[in-house]
Amino acid sequence: MKFSSSPSLSISAILTKQQQTDATNEEIKKQAMEFKEYVLEKANSVNKALEKAVLLKDPLKIHESMRYSLLAGGKRIRPMLCIAACELVGGEGSTAMPAACAVEMIHTMSLIHDDLPCMDNDDLRRGKPTNHKIYGEDVAVLAGDALLALAFEHIATQTKGVPSDRIVRVIGELAKCIGTEGLVAGQVVDIISEGISDVDLKHLEFIHLHKTAALLEGSVVLGAILGGAEDEEVEKLRKFARCIGLLFQVVDDILDVTKSSQQLGKTAGKDLVADKVTYPKLIGIGKSREFAEELNKDAKAQLAGFDQEKAAPLIALANYIAYREN
Amino acid sequence: MKFSSSPSLSISAILTKQQQTDATNEEIKKQAMEFKEYVLEKANSVNKALEKAVLLKDPLKIHESMRYSLLAGGKRIRPMLCIAACELVGGEGSTAMPAACAVEMIHTMSLIHDDLPCMDNDDLRRGKPTNHKIYGEDVAVLAGDALLALAFEHIATQTKGVPSDRIVRVIGELAKCIGTEGLVAGQVVDIISEGISDVDLKHLEFIHLHKTAALLEGSVVLGAILGGAEDEEVEKLRKFARCIGLLFQVVDDILDVTKSSQQLGKTAGKDLVADKVTYPKLIGIGKSREFAEELNKDAKAQLAGFDQEKAAPLIALANYIAYREN
Repeated sequence: MKFSSSPSLSISAILTKQQQTDATNEEIKKQAMEFKEYVLEKANSVNKALEKAVLLKDPLKIHESMRYSLLAGGKRIRPMLCIAACELVGGEGSTAMPAACAVEMIHTMSLIHDDLPCMDNDDLRRGKPTNHKIYGEDVAVLAGDALLALAFEHIATQTKGVPSDRIVRVIGELAKCIGTEGLVAGQVVDIISEGISDVDLKHLEFIHLHKTAALLEGSVVLGAILGGAEDEEVEKLRKFARCIGLLFQVVDDILDVTKSSQQLGKTAGKDLVADKVTYPKLIGIGKSREFAEELNKDAKAQLAGFDQEKAAPLIALANYIAYREN
Repeated sequence: MKFSSSPSLSISAILTKQQQTDATNEEIKKQAMEFKEYVLEKANSVNKALEKAVLLKDPLKIHESMRYSLLAGGKRIRPMLCIAACELVGGEGSTAMPAACAVEMIHTMSLIHDDLPCMDNDDLRRGKPTNHKIYGEDVAVLAGDALLALAFEHIATQTKGVPSDRIVRVIGELAKCIGTEGLVAGQVVDIISEGISDVDLKHLEFIHLHKTAALLEGSVVLGAILGGAEDEEVEKLRKFARCIGLLFQVVDDILDVTKSSQQLGKTAGKDLVADKVTYPKLIGIGKSREFAEELNKDAKAQLAGFDQEKAAPLIALANYIAYREN
């Protein structure tokens, strides 16, 4: 798998309108190129680490199933956030690599289980048939379970050079963003809300903060703790991540109604078909875009106190989330 | 939920034939009464701790689903093994309580997922309808996921008074016995083997060592590490647990063909219906019983070097597993 199967990063996709106005064309091009290199390099390292973390061994079928979804060319946004947060607070990127792999394992697990016929019943994911379509529902459930457990095993056994109390703290944070205060809470409320017509913005925000923002928050917080951040820094980065988490979902909702399945690599328009409440449905596309812009701004405000050069990857990642096209 | 819904412990069920021959009737009764008290006390503490670990809060449905299966009156064998191992090596039982709860959460998660229609398709568990029968398949999958994550969160955030490096080690051990070297490996090979006629003893042992013994091993090893065991002690206890783990499954196979659904609190004879290979099918009931006796003896041999008074609960638990009636 090559990174080229991941999103292409156009200049407009990674710089805000304000930045585009302020900077000269030359500067814009330079920044975009630098970020593109950063993304390529990090995604490459993450993909190599993930490949090594789940080798093809006995029992073959379960490892094939895990690898099928884990190595399917995801954007690796969560691992990048984890590594970038670690580096921002002065840590080495390699220190956060096991945690970076772990958040991608959790993300993949949640996709496999959410795609199941008894859940969202999705046939297409990242441009390929979903896990249960290839390996059967039984193996898909188990592959998710195995990835969930492996995430914790990987952090506990592979994180090197940091005090054990940080590792324990990181494991507590990761676990929290998966269960009934995180992913699971978001998915269960999402399921219950399907077909209900009077879902309001607060309710929608609950779903997205749990279903999407929680793991992005976890990714950033894990990296920050492993990098040795002070508590105050961790909390700022937590707030940054919650903003970009919500941003991620607002953009996802917009893309679902404005792009084709081919462009997205997954079934487009499925929110409409499933009669799901989304931001465009509640406040319209225009207001949704404004809200996205506001969240992006709020996110970056949290990074103001940090070394701006070191914060550049997180700022660029926020821009990428805001202006991505799939 | 009262512990009285758990297995009644007859004298013959907790003492070996040898012990029954050696001891006077009075001694037998005294030992049995002491163990019964021990079991009642520990199960009570574990049940209280589990009740507190998963409170009924928003989102209600997922917490109801988790509590439904977690607080359904299981025998609490795994938590007891965990606490008993911790006490055996000189630790306080309370130190191991979060890990004891965690292994029960993992056990419950595996039951919920294994019972799913796409897996073993079971309607009855611990005498009640299975989780998905009450809450639907989607919520059952998520309840399992949430329990899996909570197990790690509980250990990481609730374990007190031990060095962090022990907690990290314990988390690595627990994770390993869930994934593709543990429960998941056992379940996936079990599924693949259904309907295959030429499954041999080695293959059957692989399934049981992973599907059943791994988590019993984990339970004992977690307790031992938290209690401060030396590496050599951990390995002896690991071997003890693998023996009783295999023993547990051999006895389960025997019970499946000799008891009724009512006696078991779950569907009896399902191995025969599913055309699963079992010990009775491969070597007959008589030989299966002999093998169980041998495993019980091997298990206890591992405890020879420990303080025999402190080892009494583990010895009694091994006897209970060997001679249980459901």
